[in-house]
Amino acid sequence: MSEEKHVAIFDLGSNTARLIVMAYQPHKSYRQIDELRFGVRIAGAMGEEKIIRADAFERGLNAFLSISSYCKAAGIDRVKAVATSAIRDARNGDSFIASVKERTGIEITILSGEREAYYGSLAAINSLALENAFVFDLGGGSAQISRVKDKSYQEGFSYPIGAVRMSETFLSEQPPKKKAIRNLIGYVRELIAAQQPEGFGQAKMLVGMGGSMRNLAKIHSKRHNYPIDLRHSYRLSKEDLHNLANELLSKDIKSRELIAGLSSDRADIIAAAAVVIYEITELSGASEVVVSGQGIREGLFYEYLLEHHPTPIIEDVRSFSIANLAHHYYDYKAHNEHVRFLALKLFDALAERYGLNSWEKELLGYAALIHDIGMSVHYYDHHQHGYYLVMSSALPGFSHREQALIALLVKYHRKGNPSLGEFASFLKEDEDRLKKLAALLRLAEYLERSKAQIIYDLRCYLGEGYLHIEALAKSKARVEIQEAQNRSDLLASSYGLKVDISLMTHL
Amino acid sequence: MSEEKHVAIFDLGSNTARLIVMAYQPHKSYRQIDELRFGVRIAGAMGEEKIIRADAFERGLNAFLSISSYCKAAGIDRVKAVATSAIRDARNGDSFIASVKERTGIEITILSGEREAYYGSLAAINSLALENAFVFDLGGGSAQISRVKDKSYQEGFSYPIGAVRMSETFLSEQPPKKKAIRNLIGYVRELIAAQQPEGFGQAKMLVGMGGSMRNLAKIHSKRHNYPIDLRHSYRLSKEDLHNLANELLSKDIKSRELIAGLSSDRADIIAAAAVVIYEITELSGASEVVVSGQGIREGLFYEYLLEHHPTPIIEDVRSFSIANLAHHYYDYKAHNEHVRFLALKLFDALAERYGLNSWEKELLGYAALIHDIGMSVHYYDHHQHGYYLVMSSALPGFSHREQALIALLVKYHRKGNPSLGEFASFLKEDEDRLKKLAALLRLAEYLERSKAQIIYDLRCYLGEGYLHIEALAKSKARVEIQEAQNRSDLLASSYGLKVDISLMTHL
Repeated sequence: MSEEKHVAIFDLGSNTARLIVMAYQPHKSYRQIDELRFGVRIAGAMGEEKIIRADAFERGLNAFLSISSYCKAAGIDRVKAVATSAIRDARNGDSFIASVKERTGIEITILSGEREAYYGSLAAINSLALENAFVFDLGGGSAQISRVKDKSYQEGFSYPIGAVRMSETFLSEQPPKKKAIRNLIGYVRELIAAQQPEGFGQAKMLVGMGGSMRNLAKIHSKRHNYPIDLRHSYRLSKEDLHNLANELLSKDIKSRELIAGLSSDRADIIAAAAVVIYEITELSGASEVVVSGQGIREGLFYEYLLEHHPTPIIEDVRSFSIANLAHHYYDYKAHNEHVRFLALKLFDALAERYGLNSWEKELLGYAALIHDIGMSVHYYDHHQHGYYLVMSSALPGFSHREQALIALLVKYHRKGNPSLGEFASFLKEDEDRLKKLAALLRLAEYLERSKAQIIYDLRCYLGEGYLHIEALAKSKARVEIQEAQNRSDLLASSYGLKVDISLMTHL
Repeated sequence: MSEEKHVAIFDLGSNTARLIVMAYQPHKSYRQIDELRFGVRIAGAMGEEKIIRADAFERGLNAFLSISSYCKAAGIDRVKAVATSAIRDARNGDSFIASVKERTGIEITILSGEREAYYGSLAAINSLALENAFVFDLGGGSAQISRVKDKSYQEGFSYPIGAVRMSETFLSEQPPKKKAIRNLIGYVRELIAAQQPEGFGQAKMLVGMGGSMRNLAKIHSKRHNYPIDLRHSYRLSKEDLHNLANELLSKDIKSRELIAGLSSDRADIIAAAAVVIYEITELSGASEVVVSGQGIREGLFYEYLLEHHPTPIIEDVRSFSIANLAHHYYDYKAHNEHVRFLALKLFDALAERYGLNSWEKELLGYAALIHDIGMSVHYYDHHQHGYYLVMSSALPGFSHREQALIALLVKYHRKGNPSLGEFASFLKEDEDRLKKLAALLRLAEYLERSKAQIIYDLRCYLGEGYLHIEALAKSKARVEIQEAQNRSDLLASSYGLKVDISLMTHL
């Protein structure tokens, strides 16, 4: 990993300031290696005068002094610092920027609302494999709504309806009175009605980002014992949002803190956030929000990852995600690609008769490329470790259902009778799919047992009740033939076929 | 990892033949990367005539043809193949060796019973951090018993009392009659009485290895819901072994197969194995057996790992294990060592008053060296991932209790209130210990937050009800001081102390 670069991205929002440190190889791979958070609430008590108050000014400056000292110590020479609505809108924003420059040497880039919308969209495009969507990003001071068409950012608007601002303006009394809530809703609706992206109101897909968005998803997932501990790609229906907003509005701050999953430092602003998010969803016309775990920091990062690229857009997010995962763990590339090749050969032989579709083929191919990553943990039980690794972080571009299916394929690539396990109810329609795909991956794995591409191709003959496989090999491939025949029972039972494998050398 | 070498070690036993493939950097690190097993049962029906029967000969030869093809394909040029009692004792063993050589080019080394004992001991010495012990290795054909003194193999003997052989000779009827069992026991006792290592009978520590030994441990651990899924370092008391032997003897093969954890391909020989193991334990004078997951294959491997070393003995098994673990995952060496340094400084300041001992100091130091390995999985929740990684494989030289404690220290090095979790009953005496040690590790981690050794030393002043820490720093260390103060609450609550930290620069 000698070519690995590091960059620190720092975003000073109205509520929190967060630094992420990314290690990356341009165009190839990335991973986050550190994070620092500061509860600056720099827009606190800013009020009508739009002045950063002395205590907030101090908190903000201290955060910069800290990250400056951190980056110097950690040897990170690329630091990108941005500030959004709080500094943008403050009358003394320039003075803050000058102080930071003087004390730390760090140049803060002020993002306009429109640029903020752009970077949020970039994060959504590169992490959710979307083509056409509306994206909103709710921060402490403002919210952005933007339109993405054909994976390309079109336009975006910023609205001064951030969670801290709305709480302070409308919901200073908690729980709030009905009238206060009506005023808040009216305000949000009026601003969005005044200007909005083209086609907003007929949204088919709506992406939501920001700390409050993630926190609502967490509360919802805890409540429903959702089997996956990931916010990225989480889906909340309009009704879910409506219920959450009503519940939060009905409680005072102390009672909110008892809600499982709620971040206590958001207890005072989460009700306003829920109202704003619900209203945006309602106005968009979408029936649900897909949560993005990435936001403008990651959006900014993509300009580093994809440096010198015409646009900072990952062309194939799903393939990139899988390659990124493989790259971080045990990556036996020739073997993985050959297992994929063989698995897809088997797939093609069976697809028509068994009604297998291209989506299933895609998932099988992805699982093949990462089936051995658990080797990074330990040889023994590496199928189990691989399952753990696949489920341990967001897999950009995949739905949770797809991620769980891929993880299960990895889990059953060697042995055992595939079962949904902890995903029994979540994937209840996928049990047969899992068995059918795992059977192909397993046979491909054993046909490539020496990891050396000895069996270079397959010819499959599907007859009535049987599948005959001719394995074309460069040499005797004893281990392959023997183990593949031993492990073909899953294929036999999943498809109701008798399987036999014969070796063809020197063809 | 360009300097990584590969070696395949193949051991043809009486019951199974197993190939392990190790990747290693001499003197530095190793990991197993593959394994192949063949149920050859080459000693099957050998009988009084001591002849490898035609079908067994064929099975054995096929295993060699397979591993030869595998090693060629996988590009493994170092292959070490050994055979033990079955071939050693067979009248046509030479002919088998010649056939293998002719067909595959592989030279089989026949290990004498004494060499077999030696390599078993080597595995035990290098994986269990023992000083003085007796080691037995029960295979299909024979068992070896040897004596280790001051980490050095002294002497060993081989006895023709392997599990396959004893089953065929005495327990052909299953469940066996009492008389058959008495004959088996008498035979084992007589052979061991005839010659044995010096001091056997007053053993303080007895190590057991071999597939049947591991399988008994697995059955026992399943039955007792043992919280750790590891056989290496598992302990079975003499009474446990007695009960297992009696239970297995009372059942026929079909009913044995229903026992949770029992390997079905051992169902016919496990009863004889249990009797032999119990008798060895009883005769040794030890009160329990410590299971070694490693055996002669690993023993043979240590000659590769420690090439050019005067003896293939790892001097400090525990340190080597920790370094090996760190090496395989995310290894930020300077940071890890500095966290260890700071944690031990804090430890020393508190040890006397709180009665902390050197064992606790050692565990704290080890946990510090691997606290960040979970970063290999993902930055988020890396403490949780590190816990998973520590518990995912044997940690040679550590007891399970120690391994679990180290894993928990890793788990709580960043945040959360340390709790025993799944080890609640297993570690019930260690809750306070965990809290006390985790508090030190956590504070050290945040004092080294930038991972850059800014705080290069500590001076601790322990007063009545307070601990004052002077952090000696090269520069302002803002993040360190702020975060360390924030995270000192665990130290405060675990020791009942007020903690304050002050920065001392340019001293």
